[in-house]
Amino acid sequence: ADGRIEIASANGQNSLRLRGLVQADYRWYDAANDPADTFLVRRARLIVEGRFSQIFSYVLQPELSGTVQILDANVNAAISPAFNVRLGKFKVPVGLEQLQSDPVAFFNERSVASGLTPVRDVGLQVQGDLLGQTVNYTVALLNGVPDGASSSGTDFDTDKTIAARLFATPFANEKDSFLNGLGVGVAVSAGDYATTAGRAAGYRTDGQQNFFTYDASVVAAGSGLTVTPQGYFYRGPFGLLAEYVISSIDVQRAALGVREVKNHAYNLSAGWVLTGEANSYRGVTPRTVFSPSAGTWGAFEIVGRIAGVDIDDTVFSGPAAARLANPNTSATQLTTYAVGLNWFLSRSVRAGFNLYHNEFDLAPGAAPATTALIADDETTFISRLQVSF
Amino acid sequence: ADGRIEIASANGQNSLRLRGLVQADYRWYDAANDPADTFLVRRARLIVEGRFSQIFSYVLQPELSGTVQILDANVNAAISPAFNVRLGKFKVPVGLEQLQSDPVAFFNERSVASGLTPVRDVGLQVQGDLLGQTVNYTVALLNGVPDGASSSGTDFDTDKTIAARLFATPFANEKDSFLNGLGVGVAVSAGDYATTAGRAAGYRTDGQQNFFTYDASVVAAGSGLTVTPQGYFYRGPFGLLAEYVISSIDVQRAALGVREVKNHAYNLSAGWVLTGEANSYRGVTPRTVFSPSAGTWGAFEIVGRIAGVDIDDTVFSGPAAARLANPNTSATQLTTYAVGLNWFLSRSVRAGFNLYHNEFDLAPGAAPATTALIADDETTFISRLQVSF
Amino acid sequence: ADGRIEIASANGQNSLRLRGLVQADYRWYDAANDPADTFLVRRARLIVEGRFSQIFSYVLQPELSGTVQILDANVNAAISPAFNVRLGKFKVPVGLEQLQSDPVAFFNERSVASGLTPVRDVGLQVQGDLLGQTVNYTVALLNGVPDGASSSGTDFDTDKTIAARLFATPFANEKDSFLNGLGVGVAVSAGDYATTAGRAAGYRTDGQQNFFTYDASVVAAGSGLTVTPQGYFYRGPFGLLAEYVISSIDVQRAALGVREVKNHAYNLSAGWVLTGEANSYRGVTPRTVFSPSAGTWGAFEIVGRIAGVDIDDTVFSGPAAARLANPNTSATQLTTYAVGLNWFLSRSVRAGFNLYHNEFDLAPGAAPATTALIADDETTFISRLQVSF
Repeated sequence: ADGRIEIASANGQNSLRLRGLVQADYRWYDAANDPADTFLVRRARLIVEGRFSQIFSYVLQPELSGTVQILDANVNAAISPAFNVRLGKFKVPVGLEQLQSDPVAFFNERSVASGLTPVRDVGLQVQGDLLGQTVNYTVALLNGVPDGASSSGTDFDTDKTIAARLFATPFANEKDSFLNGLGVGVAVSAGDYATTAGRAAGYRTDGQQNFFTYDASVVAAGSGLTVTPQGYFYRGPFGLLAEYVISSIDVQRAALGVREVKNHAYNLSAGWVLTGEANSYRGVTPRTVFSPSAGTWGAFEIVGRIAGVDIDDTVFSGPAAARLANPNTSATQLTTYAVGLNWFLSRSVRAGFNLYHNEFDLAPGAAPATTALIADDETTFISRLQVSF
Repeated sequence: ADGRIEIASANGQNSLRLRGLVQADYRWYDAANDPADTFLVRRARLIVEGRFSQIFSYVLQPELSGTVQILDANVNAAISPAFNVRLGKFKVPVGLEQLQSDPVAFFNERSVASGLTPVRDVGLQVQGDLLGQTVNYTVALLNGVPDGASSSGTDFDTDKTIAARLFATPFANEKDSFLNGLGVGVAVSAGDYATTAGRAAGYRTDGQQNFFTYDASVVAAGSGLTVTPQGYFYRGPFGLLAEYVISSIDVQRAALGVREVKNHAYNLSAGWVLTGEANSYRGVTPRTVFSPSAGTWGAFEIVGRIAGVDIDDTVFSGPAAARLANPNTSATQLTTYAVGLNWFLSRSVRAGFNLYHNEFDLAPGAAPATTALIADDETTFISRLQVSF
Repeated sequence: ADGRIEIASANGQNSLRLRGLVQADYRWYDAANDPADTFLVRRARLIVEGRFSQIFSYVLQPELSGTVQILDANVNAAISPAFNVRLGKFKVPVGLEQLQSDPVAFFNERSVASGLTPVRDVGLQVQGDLLGQTVNYTVALLNGVPDGASSSGTDFDTDKTIAARLFATPFANEKDSFLNGLGVGVAVSAGDYATTAGRAAGYRTDGQQNFFTYDASVVAAGSGLTVTPQGYFYRGPFGLLAEYVISSIDVQRAALGVREVKNHAYNLSAGWVLTGEANSYRGVTPRTVFSPSAGTWGAFEIVGRIAGVDIDDTVFSGPAAARLANPNTSATQLTTYAVGLNWFLSRSVRAGFNLYHNEFDLAPGAAPATTALIADDETTFISRLQVSF
């Protein structure tokens, strides 16, 4: 359908799909302390998916842009609708926006709250649908990755991480209910981290710049816990997605004492399809295709988002030699505002025009250089033309 | 056709093609100051192309050999034959030989003149065919890349580069005209370059060795302009391709003054298909396939080329500490002679046997070490077996 | 068949196949001097194969997991069954277990004996089947790679390596013979190696850890010769694979004298398909598919292996400053025992559970640190879920 290669055997038990994603961006930054304006191939992916003997399936998805690497590589066994087993590399079942397929999200870039959730990891996952498919559970045993990061191969330590998510769409089977498109859930990730590279990560702005990084000598040194209550509500052309993330982690600077750092983030995003098509977590399908000759224009959606990150104050406390982060290069709080217009030119082609404004709160006593990213607000315009099939 | 996967929807509006390129080389060098003789996988590419809703298309082409990276990743909208928009990564519309698809060129390696033209970049391009498809115009706004280089992602500076090309095939619609296969045009690339890594490049011989590089402390520091008058003429089994390149760029060594460097290059290549098939800018299709059992041999073509590069004398002027390039490792002029035989074993399989001879002119006072590439002529034999589908 | 895309032209002369391999592992190590237990995507490959005009074919196989790189990229001409020419990158025709396709081998990891044979290289190969396809010969001219290594591109030196293999299945055409599934052969690789990076390699345990490496200043400095008598015997559910490897190489530490190092290795592996399916060098095809609803379980095979490596004593002789390897980090002998269970869930899906025990013999006077790998035995459990199509 619509450009995918899909080949199935006569008995329907085996199939193979060839899919892809290309995102071509232009990014404009307002200030000299931001990066240079640039054209960019943000994502270029080839995706091969297949199914054998009805039960087994696999996904093979390399990222071809930037650092070429495997994103998804996993084998699945669908023992029953309520019991599926997956082994390999896949998305960690934690963040709601992180789990949403990138090309169908409201904005070109995920919110800063997703920066506090794990991205992809290697492990074993069990998941299934219960109660007439109104409840989905997912439990995964994983190597463990830092906030906003993906696994790059083998584990750093023998300790493993458990991620679990429960998500309910209680009215999904009641087509006429006002709450038909409601989904609510909660996800947790917990594990021990005991290595230098283990879990001390940085966080990025909407413009994809680090506004917070730990001091280079800070290491993970104990347990980490991420909790994210989450939900969405879609009705007609309207969509809303909300998520709260608490990420806590025991870290240590050199031989100084272990401190628990607890960072918070939130994301509230909404969209309205101006042309009336149905909104959903899986994206918008335009009723018409952009065609000057036919006089049709596809679909349009306006989107808005408020999101923020609050860094634990303990990070900046103490004398300079003992602080976990440098207040002159790392902010203690980030508040972001974003608006955008999505133009669905066809089922597979979408243009997105996003304006992001990011405001930093500095830690007490901070005196950033004028060239530092956090020296003043970041305003970024990111436009994108995307093919996703 | 001929091994490509091409799948189209019933209404013809959507399609997907899976293509590929494998080039397996043996390279022989004549002298000890050249690299070691070697087998080499020169190119190994998988190409996915598709079309949606008749208007939209995309290309996804990773290079799998050597440094794995994305070459082409772009989205196109064919609004009308005269107005096509492309966003993403693609070939810069400047060099005639650079724009020709590599597997169908006369020689296994492009001429040294192509080393002065940009290769691939990220940006926005508008192009179209006018006047009964006898004139093609292309205008692109790009990040900007050095001579003979490709973009590796985001831009180094906010300044952008404009590339524009006008190419006419005035007799393309007159099948009986002697000049039916004539094409002439001119291309320009202009932009500002203001960073260390911005635009100061090196140039390579036919044997793919650097015969010219700027001093490591030289940076681009102003405007750059590339102009290339170009043309081809194909008639029956005969083909001719000619190009002249002027590449000028403002550069600076450390805090010393900015100097404009203007380098020149030319390429005159020709081919003759011995077995009589038609020659063209898009390659040769053999009438028969190599088949010992059928007693058929495919097609054969002999090719010849003269090309050269003339480096601006200002590069070597001044005391050693202020020179832009070291005359003991960089030549001031390169003249290359090449002959070859192409054997078209099938539509998709071609063998190429090329002999290259490269002569260097040294700057006044140059005294290269005997191990330096430019210490004496470079003679290289490059044979290739290629599958392109 | 079974999930592969295979498209052929009407006349059968052109075809294209899209294949893949995903291996998702969990690896458990018994001791603190071993690496951390980990989930791992061991292999993630996309394979494109095609054929043109009946004679020509190609293979394009990138590895997408870990370091993304091209594994196979070659062009083939099948002039006749007895005379095939291949150019590009491919498996070196030496080791019997190395040449066996990884997903169908008895064990998840190849034996330590395969660590003494070359893996993949770039070059030209001629091969064919003789005497009613009971004898296969292969001769290749190659850049030359170290033991257990693959070519990473151009050659280090102008000297080339010759590899040749003769393998007979004398009773292959006698279906009723007790020896129908017998294959015996011998392979040789010989060449000169004269560069620092040329051929001085390390060897790994079943747990994929280096138990032997040359001192960093050791270089290849003369000729190298690898000889491997080899054979297999398959009958009904039973399979046996045996190989002996002698790898000798002239090496030199800094300016000290050249020494010939001759290392030996052996591999004796066997498997028994409990569910009665036929065993073969090309793997096992289960009679049933795992399907809880149908009450079928697929096929099961138990496997066992004894293998070992004996390092030349000369490597550890002499004073510390002149030794070729450090006896505190490199063992002089490795003996490995492995048992495993393979579960064939479908033609394309296999799970493998392997227990490996590796015992080190230390060189005289060795006193490894307790954190050194060779300080005590390595015991590793490697489980895998694999899709191969």
